[in-house]
Amino acid sequence: MAGLHHQLTMLWQTGAKRCSFSFFTRFLWSSCSRNNQVTEKRGIFGKKYIPRRAVLYVPGDDERKLKKVPTLNVDCAVLDCEDGVALSKKEEARKTIRHMLDQVEFGRTECVVRMNSVDSGLASDDMKEVFKAGRLPPTIMFPKVESVDHVEWISEELFKHLRTRTLVDKINLIIYIESAKSLLDLRTICQRAVDLSEKGLFILDGVVFGSDDFCADIGATRTLQAKEVLLARQNIVLVAKSLKIQAVDLVYIDYKDLKGLKEQSLEGAQMGFTGKQVIHPSQIPIVQEAFAPSTDKIEWAKELIKEFKEHQMSGMGAFEFRGAMIDKPLLLQAQNIVQLAEVLEL
Amino acid sequence: MAGLHHQLTMLWQTGAKRCSFSFFTRFLWSSCSRNNQVTEKRGIFGKKYIPRRAVLYVPGDDERKLKKVPTLNVDCAVLDCEDGVALSKKEEARKTIRHMLDQVEFGRTECVVRMNSVDSGLASDDMKEVFKAGRLPPTIMFPKVESVDHVEWISEELFKHLRTRTLVDKINLIIYIESAKSLLDLRTICQRAVDLSEKGLFILDGVVFGSDDFCADIGATRTLQAKEVLLARQNIVLVAKSLKIQAVDLVYIDYKDLKGLKEQSLEGAQMGFTGKQVIHPSQIPIVQEAFAPSTDKIEWAKELIKEFKEHQMSGMGAFEFRGAMIDKPLLLQAQNIVQLAEVLEL
Amino acid sequence: MAGLHHQLTMLWQTGAKRCSFSFFTRFLWSSCSRNNQVTEKRGIFGKKYIPRRAVLYVPGDDERKLKKVPTLNVDCAVLDCEDGVALSKKEEARKTIRHMLDQVEFGRTECVVRMNSVDSGLASDDMKEVFKAGRLPPTIMFPKVESVDHVEWISEELFKHLRTRTLVDKINLIIYIESAKSLLDLRTICQRAVDLSEKGLFILDGVVFGSDDFCADIGATRTLQAKEVLLARQNIVLVAKSLKIQAVDLVYIDYKDLKGLKEQSLEGAQMGFTGKQVIHPSQIPIVQEAFAPSTDKIEWAKELIKEFKEHQMSGMGAFEFRGAMIDKPLLLQAQNIVQLAEVLEL
Repeated sequence: MAGLHHQLTMLWQTGAKRCSFSFFTRFLWSSCSRNNQVTEKRGIFGKKYIPRRAVLYVPGDDERKLKKVPTLNVDCAVLDCEDGVALSKKEEARKTIRHMLDQVEFGRTECVVRMNSVDSGLASDDMKEVFKAGRLPPTIMFPKVESVDHVEWISEELFKHLRTRTLVDKINLIIYIESAKSLLDLRTICQRAVDLSEKGLFILDGVVFGSDDFCADIGATRTLQAKEVLLARQNIVLVAKSLKIQAVDLVYIDYKDLKGLKEQSLEGAQMGFTGKQVIHPSQIPIVQEAFAPSTDKIEWAKELIKEFKEHQMSGMGAFEFRGAMIDKPLLLQAQNIVQLAEVLEL
Repeated sequence: MAGLHHQLTMLWQTGAKRCSFSFFTRFLWSSCSRNNQVTEKRGIFGKKYIPRRAVLYVPGDDERKLKKVPTLNVDCAVLDCEDGVALSKKEEARKTIRHMLDQVEFGRTECVVRMNSVDSGLASDDMKEVFKAGRLPPTIMFPKVESVDHVEWISEELFKHLRTRTLVDKINLIIYIESAKSLLDLRTICQRAVDLSEKGLFILDGVVFGSDDFCADIGATRTLQAKEVLLARQNIVLVAKSLKIQAVDLVYIDYKDLKGLKEQSLEGAQMGFTGKQVIHPSQIPIVQEAFAPSTDKIEWAKELIKEFKEHQMSGMGAFEFRGAMIDKPLLLQAQNIVQLAEVLEL
Repeated sequence: MAGLHHQLTMLWQTGAKRCSFSFFTRFLWSSCSRNNQVTEKRGIFGKKYIPRRAVLYVPGDDERKLKKVPTLNVDCAVLDCEDGVALSKKEEARKTIRHMLDQVEFGRTECVVRMNSVDSGLASDDMKEVFKAGRLPPTIMFPKVESVDHVEWISEELFKHLRTRTLVDKINLIIYIESAKSLLDLRTICQRAVDLSEKGLFILDGVVFGSDDFCADIGATRTLQAKEVLLARQNIVLVAKSLKIQAVDLVYIDYKDLKGLKEQSLEGAQMGFTGKQVIHPSQIPIVQEAFAPSTDKIEWAKELIKEFKEHQMSGMGAFEFRGAMIDKPLLLQAQNIVQLAEVLEL
């Protein structure tokens, strides 16, 4: 059920697009296609939507923590080969992840593997070992993707390591933006990934903001208000949403400050992010709640739509609701919230 | 007189450019060209400047509201075919707008027609009917312009629908940015419109930020502080001003909160927007005042220029004024404010 | 010693890059190359790093102020031919600067000459006179660089005016961004300068944000919070750091408000700027302190690294420190701060 907020977001993203080709009103009330999207958990482009409100890192060499994942009720767990694993433990992490993929039932949690970066020289060995698992991870993450060359390398490596495997679905690829250069080239990089996925073994499914490496790269200092990364965050949302893929917001580093976490999570959701990285299990419920609609919002949306239908009957266009003029963009938002609430049984 | 603030803004925009080709000081005190710009209401590029501080939407099918426009003292009224009109009323709206253009004396208010979007399939019919009016609208608006293709379609349709008409002036085109993709492509789209206008029947005159559709597209939620659209707003100002065209800021949706409206209007003016969309007549005076210079500012500007002239005589460059070092950029701002105040008789 | 903070920033900028080609940990603890960078004051790319935390303007025709520069303990003094000098005093300014360069011992302060803009028609005469000095300025600044053409013109003029001189080092070029167009084209302009410097007499070393001309160009009003230029500031940091060059922040115009100056200086440093323009000597110590690390930060960094080493021994990756999960990006920041503190003897 958790994925439906994201599905909603995808609907939001594609609303304007659809109304470009048919007409807005036709889309808005086309219950047929709507039901299809929601009940089959497939987005408008035919791809199954995977919720990733909270994205939790688990060191790949820590078997105890990996086995605890199914109890955490987290949308997405990242079995990490990269920053969470010391250099001396890389080989151990790869083997542990491979076995965990086959042995642990992760339930509703998506298990993603984060490889080391292309330039680290470690990623090919990561893939070689992890892809020996009987159950392949549905999604892989690549940190520090800096250029079109990196995306091309990933595409070729996937052919190399998966040539003997039969894939039911393409593997989802999620990339990290962690430097000034990669942010400036983000649209080009993502567009190349989209193009390559046509005949490739993967589909680009999201972008993650690696804020600490990014700040180190530009010489910035992380602050509580995160003003220093506002441009970066909004650019990432902008490019991701222009390609109808997910955008995952920065880590809230002080994991004991749950109040601050909540504020930053809500802010990220308001900005258009579809999820947020977390580094401790205590952050999961707060983040996952922030990326779902509030009771007030649901009530507002239901009543607005009720009144709109009455006004629509009367042939009027814009109308007043709770002291505000309402037109179609607001209606579309309300419609999406109501759809989501119905499926979440809120 | 209301248009002069905008004229001022155009002067601001072009100040740096002009000083690129001649020399700053020559421009600054060239009273000849200055007087010409102000008294003839023509901008530096020979195009008449049209003030659009408040841009008010009026549903095209609502004859009562349309007839009320001349009493509102608004810079710009949008006779709307798009979001303010129910699908069942589109034909009625077109015909009503056509007759209103010929029958109503709108006085100092510019009457603009907003067509339906290119992708709606309704825009060609909109233009066909509206352009039957004896008095053509000086300006048309197109919502949801997403690509260079859209601009080319508009250009061709104008030739088609206006081939039997004699135009005294080219028609002003104002486009809406309402999605992630269109924001990313904004400069390319606008540049194509500028190029096409060379031999076309239109001139690109402004960009409007359609914040609700934009937020729906990126999955963002509108908040009071509007932090979620800060990048979008600043990008729109940046691209518009790089092409010396107008930039119209987002709607303040809660039309009963006039205090909030005032704050957001002042913020928009400070950011470089030349006007703001309004959805209720009560918003007009607040917005129009926010986009005009304050008494304090005028007094500051007059005194600064007086002191500068005295220092200039003495051959000194930078000088101190009220505890601040003053150089030419500040002088240019002051000069523009004084010119505006003189014409507004403030 | 003041330059080391900037050296640190350069290390930050290049940290992620280096770890792309070798591996992070190898870089992190490679004391050999680290010592080389710090003690020889050379950056990773072999170019000597010049600190410019505070960048002070001094009118080129004001001999009294110019002679006072060595007493000010400022990183960088700009001997100005442009906005600080009245048109009637341009020739006097050029000659005064030429003589000051040869006669005054500026000590630890770098003396930079700001020419008039390319489009002013004055820049060629500026260079002709200034480059007659026996001691050439190590760095020149060009205001209002608007296009690739401007950069090409500067490159050619340098060949013309310096053809009879033997250069020990290439001349550093710093350009000003002062309009919407130049901000939109910033990356292209800077990349062209980097390309031209391959066989040219200069090296692009930084970008300065000329906020007053920029605001005049976009029709914005400068406010205390500077929200109206947030996009511009963050874009300048982004492009500069992607090319590993310096970024110099806006002037704080009210030079009597030292509290406000301090806040804005710290904000700029947090955003990734390497320095800030100042217009009065009283601003220098505040700005230079803001662009150096705090005692708290140094203590945090030292302790973090101590604990990391202990954890590293034990083979663990991410670990907890003062309630926060620490991984490599944070480690790199801490490492850089410790290196800096050692050399500053803090």
